Amino acid sequence: MADSTQKFAFGVDIGGTNTKYGLVNHRGDISHKGDLPTNKYEQVSEFVEALYQALQPAIDEVGAENIKGIGVGAPNGNYYTGTIDYAPNLHWRGIVPLAQLVTDKFNLPCWLTNDANAAAVGEMMYGAARGMKDFIMITLGTGVGSGIVANGHLIYGHDGFAGELGHTIIRPGGRPHWSTELDGSLEAYASATGIVLTAKELLEKSPKESTMRQYDGDQLNSKIVYECAMAGDELAQEAYRFTGQILGEALANFIMFSSPQAIILFGGVIKAGDLLLKPTREHMERNLLPIFQNKVQLLFSELAEADAAILGASALVWEN
Amino acid sequence: MADSTQKFAFGVDIGGTNTKYGLVNHRGDISHKGDLPTNKYEQVSEFVEALYQALQPAIDEVGAENIKGIGVGAPNGNYYTGTIDYAPNLHWRGIVPLAQLVTDKFNLPCWLTNDANAAAVGEMMYGAARGMKDFIMITLGTGVGSGIVANGHLIYGHDGFAGELGHTIIRPGGRPHWSTELDGSLEAYASATGIVLTAKELLEKSPKESTMRQYDGDQLNSKIVYECAMAGDELAQEAYRFTGQILGEALANFIMFSSPQAIILFGGVIKAGDLLLKPTREHMERNLLPIFQNKVQLLFSELAEADAAILGASALVWEN
Repeated sequence: MADSTQKFAFGVDIGGTNTKYGLVNHRGDISHKGDLPTNKYEQVSEFVEALYQALQPAIDEVGAENIKGIGVGAPNGNYYTGTIDYAPNLHWRGIVPLAQLVTDKFNLPCWLTNDANAAAVGEMMYGAARGMKDFIMITLGTGVGSGIVANGHLIYGHDGFAGELGHTIIRPGGRPHWSTELDGSLEAYASATGIVLTAKELLEKSPKESTMRQYDGDQLNSKIVYECAMAGDELAQEAYRFTGQILGEALANFIMFSSPQAIILFGGVIKAGDLLLKPTREHMERNLLPIFQNKVQLLFSELAEADAAILGASALVWEN
Repeated sequence: MADSTQKFAFGVDIGGTNTKYGLVNHRGDISHKGDLPTNKYEQVSEFVEALYQALQPAIDEVGAENIKGIGVGAPNGNYYTGTIDYAPNLHWRGIVPLAQLVTDKFNLPCWLTNDANAAAVGEMMYGAARGMKDFIMITLGTGVGSGIVANGHLIYGHDGFAGELGHTIIRPGGRPHWSTELDGSLEAYASATGIVLTAKELLEKSPKESTMRQYDGDQLNSKIVYECAMAGDELAQEAYRFTGQILGEALANFIMFSSPQAIILFGGVIKAGDLLLKPTREHMERNLLPIFQNKVQLLFSELAEADAAILGASALVWEN
């Protein structure tokens, strides 16, 4: 039976592939976790309906009166307006008034932010960034997102869109992005999609043997590249090394912007561990001014992959 | 005669070439302006002595008891420690405890920050950024500096060194920097020194006639490139166009970091006006995600070149 002093908040993390959700209490315990395939829903109204069905059992169990609200992290989510604006990795086009749609459907208040901002807040409250006032969170998943904390606060910028580091140009004239059409952006290389493209380029250019050659172009995905790399496949490992190089160069630039105490990496791509971390650290240090060298911690998230964003999204509710 | 309620602060702006100073009252009026050739002083102690001699007449006139302190902006100046650390464009090597040296010499409190941070504060209090809470100041002089304001506050980072945007890498593997040895940094292109290097490269590669050919390599300086460009010399104008392209690409990345309301350009290089501004704006917009396009004001400083940094440096005194 729900204690009358105990309140809950939903945390919802909308990603390009999956949407993850959970019910969070004040201590940061998550229950009723689940997920939805974001891109299955061509219309955002279908998505909100599916989310409603998915959360209903939790609402029934604890009672709607004990739920304070719903916090959502989403790509291009705008904290100021509650809208998702022109998200390149989502099917929903234009400006999507998600917070309003959720509030109308659930009859609960809803706050929205960038998915990576949500993850950064989760990491600051419960993870590797506990006690830090200056850090950058980089999420390496289907896309590359970021949340920047300076002086203990998220940087939102004048319009709520700050922290789109995945779209900064790291290689001018480089690989075109499949959606934004910008050339040489970080996301074109350091996302799961980017690693697969790098692997394909390596397979084409190199005569080396590789287990990855067993898969034709359409079959090769980031999971296969990862598994081949972990099994010692040289070309697959080279794909991670190159990814680390690009990421390290990008991180050096970010450090010279906000001089964070730490950079926290998060998301599916970091499963490769040192295969990614070593070249990243090497190229990060190499591109820094001496005053920044050997000072910035490069850390992996301490939270289970889904939890940081769910916790961070739910934290929006407690704050409001 | 000095009013007993009227207090003054010195503002000192240490640049790679010149140090500018002035006595500032609460309203932001500057008197007793002057400058010193920074790099003439091989030892920082000689510099502090020369500064003492230079400021003495102003101290005598208003009375030491009416001067609240000395604010200093300097390359790699650290607000937290009062030191100038490894400034690539200054003769003084290592970590220079400038605030302590000034306090000891003048018997007045001294606060120090990055020269570009000081300029940003000056612009926020008295110039083009009045009323703005999110903007980036880029100083284009001997070097390229920056001051980043988010949520109305300067971003200092965990160690006081945030905002070294001149040293971010814009062209990986590009032009080596004469001092940092990093390849392809913004400062290697968009500083006065960088523009001269660009002009020299163009003279070498192009068969075109140019007034700049009247000067041999050692004679060609940024003033000559500027004057030739203003007189219609095509290669000199191309040097500014290319500089604007690189600067615009860099600004796009900075915007996707902190989403500022405006970017304010400042320093000797902006004298070229539209020759620089047009290509800068074009390449900035071209490299932005749609959510950032046509939203960010690209402005020139509204303060006389020396005044912003002097005013900003003096503002450190009022704040403390």
